[in-house]
Amino acid sequence: MSKIDEYLDSNAKRFEAELFELLRIPSVSADPQRAGDIRRTADWLLDHFSQMGLSVELIETAGHPLVLAETPQVPPSSPETQPPTVLVYGHYDVQPPEPLELWTTPPFEPVVREGHVFARGAADNKGQFMTHVNSVAAWLAVEGRLPVNIKLLIEGEEEIGSGHLEEFVRQNARRLACDCVVVSDSCQLAPGRPAITCGLRGIAYYDLKLTGPKRDLHSGSFGGSVTNPANALAKMLAALIDERGRVQVPGFYDDVVPLSDEERRQFAALPFDEKAYMDEIGVDALAGEEGYTTLQRRWARPTFDICGLSGGYQGEGVKTVLPSVASAKLSFRLVPDQDPDKITAGLRKILEEVCPAGIRMELIEHQGSPGMRVSLDSPYVKAAARAIEHGFDIAPVYIREGGSIPVVATFAQELGADVLLLGWAQDDDNAHSPNEKFSLDSFHRATRASAKLWEELGRAG
Amino acid sequence: MSKIDEYLDSNAKRFEAELFELLRIPSVSADPQRAGDIRRTADWLLDHFSQMGLSVELIETAGHPLVLAETPQVPPSSPETQPPTVLVYGHYDVQPPEPLELWTTPPFEPVVREGHVFARGAADNKGQFMTHVNSVAAWLAVEGRLPVNIKLLIEGEEEIGSGHLEEFVRQNARRLACDCVVVSDSCQLAPGRPAITCGLRGIAYYDLKLTGPKRDLHSGSFGGSVTNPANALAKMLAALIDERGRVQVPGFYDDVVPLSDEERRQFAALPFDEKAYMDEIGVDALAGEEGYTTLQRRWARPTFDICGLSGGYQGEGVKTVLPSVASAKLSFRLVPDQDPDKITAGLRKILEEVCPAGIRMELIEHQGSPGMRVSLDSPYVKAAARAIEHGFDIAPVYIREGGSIPVVATFAQELGADVLLLGWAQDDDNAHSPNEKFSLDSFHRATRASAKLWEELGRAG
Repeated sequence: MSKIDEYLDSNAKRFEAELFELLRIPSVSADPQRAGDIRRTADWLLDHFSQMGLSVELIETAGHPLVLAETPQVPPSSPETQPPTVLVYGHYDVQPPEPLELWTTPPFEPVVREGHVFARGAADNKGQFMTHVNSVAAWLAVEGRLPVNIKLLIEGEEEIGSGHLEEFVRQNARRLACDCVVVSDSCQLAPGRPAITCGLRGIAYYDLKLTGPKRDLHSGSFGGSVTNPANALAKMLAALIDERGRVQVPGFYDDVVPLSDEERRQFAALPFDEKAYMDEIGVDALAGEEGYTTLQRRWARPTFDICGLSGGYQGEGVKTVLPSVASAKLSFRLVPDQDPDKITAGLRKILEEVCPAGIRMELIEHQGSPGMRVSLDSPYVKAAARAIEHGFDIAPVYIREGGSIPVVATFAQELGADVLLLGWAQDDDNAHSPNEKFSLDSFHRATRASAKLWEELGRAG
Repeated sequence: MSKIDEYLDSNAKRFEAELFELLRIPSVSADPQRAGDIRRTADWLLDHFSQMGLSVELIETAGHPLVLAETPQVPPSSPETQPPTVLVYGHYDVQPPEPLELWTTPPFEPVVREGHVFARGAADNKGQFMTHVNSVAAWLAVEGRLPVNIKLLIEGEEEIGSGHLEEFVRQNARRLACDCVVVSDSCQLAPGRPAITCGLRGIAYYDLKLTGPKRDLHSGSFGGSVTNPANALAKMLAALIDERGRVQVPGFYDDVVPLSDEERRQFAALPFDEKAYMDEIGVDALAGEEGYTTLQRRWARPTFDICGLSGGYQGEGVKTVLPSVASAKLSFRLVPDQDPDKITAGLRKILEEVCPAGIRMELIEHQGSPGMRVSLDSPYVKAAARAIEHGFDIAPVYIREGGSIPVVATFAQELGADVLLLGWAQDDDNAHSPNEKFSLDSFHRATRASAKLWEELGRAG
């Protein structure tokens, strides 16, 4: 057992305590009232990184600040062989915790039950990026230096679209220059089945707001004479997808890269238990776009999901109201090479076509990012595979992820770097639901894998 | 000027003050937290009626209590001529005041602006039924007796379906026996254009709740693999009505009594200004079932309106959630002779047909009542026309009303009595919206008409 691994073992409880401290700060980026907590979280990280011996900087944006930290420069072993530079990306903001009444214990009071820490942000993403922070701390404590140069870039707006980070990356490509990017913000295939994620879906997210009469009306006195915006909303949303699960936005599938036969074989070979998956999410049937398997639909096919519906009276009992306003939150998951801007244009076109008389429509674009894939041939991917095997005692599988990390495509494009997506969480960690959790065993194994990764990347460089 | 009218004039301010006192009690029947206020309102009425010299009774139900008061028995003028008995119906409960932020002044602090009192319940129904209370008080104060026997029946559950009143009426038909029923819970045609309402629509109201996965899911990791209940809800609701505004519930139009040529002519002759109507509700187009005029659609054609939509994330910004639950509140306005039970059966059938795999559906029936019409040939209608002309200095027009007073059909059926629908409010009084109001001029004119009505009905009997 290496000295580094020994150090990680003997500091495991400290690492947990530090994570819990971080989880206690309710850094909800979508909630303007939490701006102070966002700032506290960034300050906590700055302080923590300083104490580890990193040079740190708080980078202000028009939104929530970025935290950037760098390890001491590694001297080249020879004039020809520069040690590689690794950019580690994570996000310190979290999803809103609502609905609060469904949490077993409060979302910002971390509690350990059956080997998992329960708290908003445990898996997404505080528990995951802290593995890399801790592995850097271990190297510095034990060896006084790292085998690679590491830049830690932790943002506070991932859950609201990473808008300001994207801008920062585009304007600071030289400062962020690196050989590869490491991101741990995705899932293992299953417990004990770590994975390298070779593809992500993109996203295009909108608010659709329909306004009819200027005030809520009595549905008896006025019903039948005027277009009801809630009725119109149902009609318009229904027009966006057909009975076969095909999205009806014009041109939606034009740029979709079809699955290759090799990808179909690879997906089919993965140990995915459809029955267990159904049980876990509590449905008696799976469904989606016709002609594709469940894993294909989750990872490599685009979707349309209504994320929120709102309008009229939503309380107890009866209120006979014809609402003035009805609205919906719309999410399209995109795959390579769909272009979010083309999707927006197509969506606006079909919605305008189906919007009835007497309704004013507003379509607000919240975020758009394309999907991405990474090459299995990269030497960094191979290095990561060896590091994961060291930490988890099993070789990783190669999967995709249905979620989006909008900034990943930007890193790949702007920095020209390979992106390693090393997810430590599980599908059932409730990343965006009540009772979010993260396995402490995964937390510690991942930290060990991360420490090994710096060594393997040093050799690969 | 009669002594009664003089009394009404000199007591006008007191009648206003008493109405404002009643409006200050937030008697929201749909809100379980307001049960105490409901009780306070009933007690206020009991006390007020007692002081007027009526015999009173608080009638407990499984829900909110009924208030029943009776005037002293009028001796017959001869053994053959019994004075008629009139049942006056009203309701002391009010609609929920939400959304509160849209009220100019608080809903339960009555304020007079430009001749109107603003408060929840001002028009619907406290301000309206109090006209009859005040006219009874005037007769008793001036003449010591009334020309007719009057039973005042004021309930506390009209806004939640009048369930317990209906039961009470069915079980106490003898006790409530009367020659005609007077209800003021509808609108004039326009300011200064009082009307007798010769038809009401019925209603069938439902909660539709769809459940998919047992918890909210991340729309990226899970989207595309499982039926989204919000998507399903949009599809199912869209299936209930076609592009021509025709409701698709099986058998929906089977029992609809078509408009006669005479009714079409009568509606067309009314001074209804479509442009002013559009301006007042703030739309640039009217719409509804094809082939019918606006008044026909509002008064004599059935409708489908979504009164509420709910599901997933409804807050600010982005939350990428695939919701576990989505729900809607559905209102069908019915016309004679549609049967609410047949509508429920048809609705359940079509919803079950279009409900997709992976979704559990719950359809909860909240209230159902048929529409009704009254005959223009009734002597009581003619008496009411004379009384209204006395109060408003203009003869009434004969209209219909798109809203429902569920108990009216029950009165007609169970008591075998003619129902006089004498609405004193206006369409723009915001009965179910923020800033509900009621004209004080109408309040006083209606009180004068009501006092005359007892005299006219006494002669008609």
